[in-house]
Amino acid sequence: MKITAVIMAGGRGERFWPKSRNDKPKQFLSLTQDKETMIQKTVKRLLPVVEKDDIYIVTNASYTSLVSEQLPDIPKENILAEPCARNTAPCIAYAAAIINKKYDDAIMLVLPSDHLIKYEDIYISTIKKAIKSAKEGKNLITIGITPTYPETGYGYINFGEEKGDVFEVKKFVEKPDLKTAKSYLSSGKYLWNSGMFVWKISSIMQNFREFMPDIHKGALRIGENFGTENFDSVLKEEFENFRSESIDFGIMEKADDIYTIPGSFGWDDVGSWLAMERINETDEFKNFTEGDVLMYDTKRTTVCGGKRLIAAVGARDIIIVDTDDVLLVCSKNSTQDVKQIIAQLKEKNRNNLV
Amino acid sequence: MKITAVIMAGGRGERFWPKSRNDKPKQFLSLTQDKETMIQKTVKRLLPVVEKDDIYIVTNASYTSLVSEQLPDIPKENILAEPCARNTAPCIAYAAAIINKKYDDAIMLVLPSDHLIKYEDIYISTIKKAIKSAKEGKNLITIGITPTYPETGYGYINFGEEKGDVFEVKKFVEKPDLKTAKSYLSSGKYLWNSGMFVWKISSIMQNFREFMPDIHKGALRIGENFGTENFDSVLKEEFENFRSESIDFGIMEKADDIYTIPGSFGWDDVGSWLAMERINETDEFKNFTEGDVLMYDTKRTTVCGGKRLIAAVGARDIIIVDTDDVLLVCSKNSTQDVKQIIAQLKEKNRNNLV
Repeated sequence: MKITAVIMAGGRGERFWPKSRNDKPKQFLSLTQDKETMIQKTVKRLLPVVEKDDIYIVTNASYTSLVSEQLPDIPKENILAEPCARNTAPCIAYAAAIINKKYDDAIMLVLPSDHLIKYEDIYISTIKKAIKSAKEGKNLITIGITPTYPETGYGYINFGEEKGDVFEVKKFVEKPDLKTAKSYLSSGKYLWNSGMFVWKISSIMQNFREFMPDIHKGALRIGENFGTENFDSVLKEEFENFRSESIDFGIMEKADDIYTIPGSFGWDDVGSWLAMERINETDEFKNFTEGDVLMYDTKRTTVCGGKRLIAAVGARDIIIVDTDDVLLVCSKNSTQDVKQIIAQLKEKNRNNLV
Repeated sequence: MKITAVIMAGGRGERFWPKSRNDKPKQFLSLTQDKETMIQKTVKRLLPVVEKDDIYIVTNASYTSLVSEQLPDIPKENILAEPCARNTAPCIAYAAAIINKKYDDAIMLVLPSDHLIKYEDIYISTIKKAIKSAKEGKNLITIGITPTYPETGYGYINFGEEKGDVFEVKKFVEKPDLKTAKSYLSSGKYLWNSGMFVWKISSIMQNFREFMPDIHKGALRIGENFGTENFDSVLKEEFENFRSESIDFGIMEKADDIYTIPGSFGWDDVGSWLAMERINETDEFKNFTEGDVLMYDTKRTTVCGGKRLIAAVGARDIIIVDTDDVLLVCSKNSTQDVKQIIAQLKEKNRNNLV
């Protein structure tokens, strides 16, 4: 059975502002010292298990040229443009319908475009197990991440009995408070919900039919028109009618017969500027610097420089991000609040800086 | 008797880097919202007591054109160029010798070029009292500042008995620790040493003869050659031979018959970036901002912007100074360490950024 991968690359990456902008969000940036972009890494690490002609990128219509530019080996017709953002359920339904048009059935991996994986061989062997289980008829499989600390910023997957290579999912739970997160960790029965999925096209389509019939219907119509002159207008019409919904809420939390595989492959969601010191090499004082930087008595500080010299004096736990037109200085406790500045800019109609 | 003023404007203003640079130091910058430069303010506030033709500016040879530009009303021949930096004693001797050449005797005010004064009428009446006392024959008079808190960064003046408008100086003391500074304040017998002096030319020349005879001799030779074609070479020769010495150490701490007048006119030495929030208007969270700045959850933070947007998120007690080619991010506890970055730049031969 054909193995396909769908990489979701429509995000805005607001938490990486001001480097991540509307016209070039996080997945198209290099945030690591090796200079490959996040989406380039995502594709590259998949190649042992999926051929590049079978990799699909779903992205906002305005990013298709960025995708072609950064991934010249991916066939142009595999770059699926979303006319508007409607969260992951419509995105996945759209891609599934296109692949469904091509093959009787196929394996479909669904993957974010902006995460990092440290141990790629373990990642590949985990993916392979999931593919095997999907082929054997397991309905929907999600790759969970074995938690390494009580993170309160992720949803968790509570799993039960082992079934071959996978575990039954008992339930998905929302972001916990710290106490709850600690209890999840000590129970050994919870995984982080990473947003990576493996299933057969036939399985996911059946689940859309059952739990999101309107999206299923729209996606089928998009698939039917794929390759015709009506495609663009049908796609636009259906997508604009779709409600914005996540695959987690729309299907995973409702369907029975959901499985998970615990992954321990050094996953990092690179969720905010705090990630820079985790995913890059730091100095003896836990500083990460990039560009022309001088420091004095500075600790646990991240400086992503631009063209100018940046001098940090007596700094502690600060994020400094310099670009040509915007400078961000942010406390490490406040990286989630970078969005508040974007909100202020939008309110002031300063969209050129968003 | 002619009243003259000598404004010392040779400083490098390193603590205001990166706005203050070798080619345009602090005294030539505007650090207040009204856009006048420090030296322009210094001259302007003196005009009720000194005519502009009697104001002399001593500065480094490389700054004479900056002085002419910012103070077009000061006669060109009153701009005295120092061939090299030799601290305040040679600077004052040089100016005194030039004025001495012009007049039999005169009153000489000596003033820094980079301080601020809030209550200018009180300042002028204090200066007038000092002039009166100098005319009456008091040897050397220093304007002390009535301390408003136990500052450990200034030297103090211990004064004794009242003699007319002035008080006898018992001794000058070095920068104290906090406990000592507190005891100075509670004694009521200590003033901050502000570096402002009033005396007759004849008095200061006599003191130079007694306590710094080599500088006295050199200064006389400079004065004798003033207006001749030999002046530049004599000035250079003598100045380079002078040792670097402050007037405080060279004369004030050694001479008898020293007086002080307590000044309470809202003096601020604008000693570091910390001054910005004192000398400018702040918002309700004690933030001072200049330029294109957006803030979220930010308190007690100073942002001196340049051309770009600066966004501060979750910042506390931070100084951010943006220029075209350098950005400084400095903890408020570390403003004195800005010099360490300058030292690093010099070591790396990056003098274009100093």
